[in-house]
Amino acid sequence: MPRFFIDEDALRGDEIVITGGDAVHIGRSLRMKTGDEITFCRMGIEYKTVIEKMTSDEVYCKITEQSPSSSEPRLRLSLYQALPKQDKAELIIQKCTELGAAEIVFFLSRRCVSRPDEKSAQKKLIRWQKIAEEAAKQSGRGEIPVIRGILSFDEAVNSFADKDISLFCYENGGQRLSEADISSANTCGVMIGAEGGFDRDEEEKACAAGATPIWLGKRILRCETCPIAVTAIIMNIAGEM
Amino acid sequence: MPRFFIDEDALRGDEIVITGGDAVHIGRSLRMKTGDEITFCRMGIEYKTVIEKMTSDEVYCKITEQSPSSSEPRLRLSLYQALPKQDKAELIIQKCTELGAAEIVFFLSRRCVSRPDEKSAQKKLIRWQKIAEEAAKQSGRGEIPVIRGILSFDEAVNSFADKDISLFCYENGGQRLSEADISSANTCGVMIGAEGGFDRDEEEKACAAGATPIWLGKRILRCETCPIAVTAIIMNIAGEM
Repeated sequence: MPRFFIDEDALRGDEIVITGGDAVHIGRSLRMKTGDEITFCRMGIEYKTVIEKMTSDEVYCKITEQSPSSSEPRLRLSLYQALPKQDKAELIIQKCTELGAAEIVFFLSRRCVSRPDEKSAQKKLIRWQKIAEEAAKQSGRGEIPVIRGILSFDEAVNSFADKDISLFCYENGGQRLSEADISSANTCGVMIGAEGGFDRDEEEKACAAGATPIWLGKRILRCETCPIAVTAIIMNIAGEM
Repeated sequence: MPRFFIDEDALRGDEIVITGGDAVHIGRSLRMKTGDEITFCRMGIEYKTVIEKMTSDEVYCKITEQSPSSSEPRLRLSLYQALPKQDKAELIIQKCTELGAAEIVFFLSRRCVSRPDEKSAQKKLIRWQKIAEEAAKQSGRGEIPVIRGILSFDEAVNSFADKDISLFCYENGGQRLSEADISSANTCGVMIGAEGGFDRDEEEKACAAGATPIWLGKRILRCETCPIAVTAIIMNIAGEM
């Protein structure tokens, strides 16, 4: 059954009204017609619907059932990623969306090489959100992860530390990920460095804010491998893989 | 300290003799000289050495210590990957090498779209092995994973099933990865599909050969995401992350 993500304004009582590109896609590309079933998703809720009425640019669907999306992880994982070079952010967003991250927040740490200006950062954010949406559709998520940024390190630490558990990946040592008490958490923040990792001062700030330092073992992971591996492992520990 | 992988013929008693490109690299690029220390790796063994003598194209190093590489996982993970489209194999090799796979074997399943001829497959293998070598160097591995292929499905199942534990990733259901008894295994084979997954017949063959079907949860992972996530999770369960 086709699945679409919808905005708040598409929800009208017991009806969902689709306009614009999605309406054209439903009518012309998918050739759907009155009586056909479509699933819509918004913020982790799945709406099963039946098409009631179609015009050339609007589709009216009656909600027959609504329930929390079964594909959304119970654990809300917020990935705090120091901005990497080149287009590695895009790979991270795509893969961590598939793996179930609820939110991906980019920030600048001392050793970040890529430091886009405000205008360029805004353009990147729009592109990144689009990548998250595509990956969410492809992987059958019930929610599109929110992509935020680009925060300063201090802003990132402050918002990261209010989670049930906050993990700070640090190449100079810490607990093993398998020892972290993730299974009872509802929200989890993970902070991961860019190419050069974090410095001692940043580690101290994160730990002072309540984060647990985590060490990922003896092999040196590329900066884009680390968030993908960590998201997969945390989702597995949380019983979501 | 610089690290190099060596072939068998570089090992001569209590000496390691480097020739060719690596010798030039040691002398000219790294500007190393007699008395400097170099670490060499071969098949999971690390050789600590001191440079004894250098000519323009040879470097003689005395072995001062040899020990199993501390960065090599105890668990030998063999990844059996159905050949994906485009250059996804390269991403899989790079990431799974960083994460600690011992061996990556490509094979053709019924739904593989990419089916290179013998000549093209041989060219790919050379390129793939080079990618594994680069990733092994970068991540500080003590061993370069062996890249094999391209096997038929039956050949792959036969060699895959002789491991202590063999896991067959199947989107239509199976055990969760967290339930698989990986921690006591010394060797583990994991079989993962290409874009279209496996068909029922392939699942039956793999299970008849002793594999356990594994289900990776409700989110649909892209074919290149799956081996990266599975390698990370298995290494974590094995205490290697």
